[in-house]
Amino acid sequence: MVGEAKQVLGDLQGVADLETRNKMTLIVFSGDMDRVLAAFNLAITAAAMGTEVTMFFTFWGLNVLKRKRASGSGKGIMRRMLNLMNSGTAEHLPLSKLNMFGLGPWMMKRLMKQTHLPSVEEMMKLARESGVKMIACSTSIGLMGLTKNDLTADVDGVAGAATYLGVASESNVNLFV
Amino acid sequence: MVGEAKQVLGDLQGVADLETRNKMTLIVFSGDMDRVLAAFNLAITAAAMGTEVTMFFTFWGLNVLKRKRASGSGKGIMRRMLNLMNSGTAEHLPLSKLNMFGLGPWMMKRLMKQTHLPSVEEMMKLARESGVKMIACSTSIGLMGLTKNDLTADVDGVAGAATYLGVASESNVNLFV
Amino acid sequence: MVGEAKQVLGDLQGVADLETRNKMTLIVFSGDMDRVLAAFNLAITAAAMGTEVTMFFTFWGLNVLKRKRASGSGKGIMRRMLNLMNSGTAEHLPLSKLNMFGLGPWMMKRLMKQTHLPSVEEMMKLARESGVKMIACSTSIGLMGLTKNDLTADVDGVAGAATYLGVASESNVNLFV
Repeated sequence: MVGEAKQVLGDLQGVADLETRNKMTLIVFSGDMDRVLAAFNLAITAAAMGTEVTMFFTFWGLNVLKRKRASGSGKGIMRRMLNLMNSGTAEHLPLSKLNMFGLGPWMMKRLMKQTHLPSVEEMMKLARESGVKMIACSTSIGLMGLTKNDLTADVDGVAGAATYLGVASESNVNLFV
Repeated sequence: MVGEAKQVLGDLQGVADLETRNKMTLIVFSGDMDRVLAAFNLAITAAAMGTEVTMFFTFWGLNVLKRKRASGSGKGIMRRMLNLMNSGTAEHLPLSKLNMFGLGPWMMKRLMKQTHLPSVEEMMKLARESGVKMIACSTSIGLMGLTKNDLTADVDGVAGAATYLGVASESNVNLFV
Repeated sequence: MVGEAKQVLGDLQGVADLETRNKMTLIVFSGDMDRVLAAFNLAITAAAMGTEVTMFFTFWGLNVLKRKRASGSGKGIMRRMLNLMNSGTAEHLPLSKLNMFGLGPWMMKRLMKQTHLPSVEEMMKLARESGVKMIACSTSIGLMGLTKNDLTADVDGVAGAATYLGVASESNVNLFV
């Protein structure tokens, strides 16, 4: 009986490992270069460890997914204005601290090169190649003055909070960055 | 024996679903409109999916729970000063980016109306109606120069980190916003 | 059979309690006094409840672990400059809001004393005494212009994302602060 119980326990832990332990979600709310780097670093490392990673980009985080020279095809003057002011892409993201009108990010990029760390764009490519799923939040796309046409082809899909919650409830590590 | 083990497995997953998978906690540390919107969006959607949601408001997040015209009834000149400077309520929250002395939040509110998204106040009402529990952090109430009297009647209670950790350890999705 | 299944269930919940429920990780990305206080408050409370807590300090959060008068022994002019501009230690951290060139943190410290709350330095000592593990992120140490010599002796080790993910996948509460 004890042996049987132990076997059930073993089976169950196997199931838990398969279904829960090997999934991770990251909500990338921030569009700050430092936070985005931390998110991609976690995502790429987890994927390399065999974890199924899903990244949900929302609000300022959508800047990471914006195509270069995306014009902000959303209609209405408000959307256009917001899009004009919030003009970052993966290549040009601010720092959450010491931004100093671009001097901080420039220094950080230099340091990253010296430390042989990949840039945000390179990390995004690595994440893609490692099978990390990248989802754009449907609710905030409209709010940020964007449409699907403004997003890079690397995006795996556009979805809302319900999709996120479905994946997150089956994942063991869920972070809001 | 295999059938039996499978049944135990099935039972257990049912238990896990009931006890762990259907609970979510959100620590609302930030008082920025965009982050608070993201938190409420997740909370309301999760509640609609049958998840038991608990939101813990702490530090600047307490602004969301402040009654309109809360005078900051905490004693001492420090508390009064902090309360005077930190004068937001659910109706008047800043943006984490592009705040521009209130222009950003005003634009965001206009965009939310155009996109038929509820405001922070409306989301709070929706969350309440969906059974989302809202707890104010007892430690930070004092720090932010507030007392219980400054909080709206929508608050379900005042509690500390131990209460949060008790709920979080039984939840599958725990986010710090 | 029902009794047996129940016993297996009981055993298994015990295992789950031991292996998963009693672990927590905190990524301390931010170096803001308010966020760091929230992280330590959670860590110390969890440790007091018997939870095994691991804190990973990364990016600006590394300021918490910096020795007083750490000179930033990293080589290269970029690292020196970044280190000069980003000169906080556990004793001198900014606030995420209302920093006002140091007035906000000064007021917060006064309020903390009045409310009999420990300071960041005292919390760090408490965390240490409670057995909370403090790990410095190896990737960001180089980026922030630091070396291991700049860190306080309280650090339990230097490790990367893979170590974090290993611990987090076995923990029930994982937060990114």
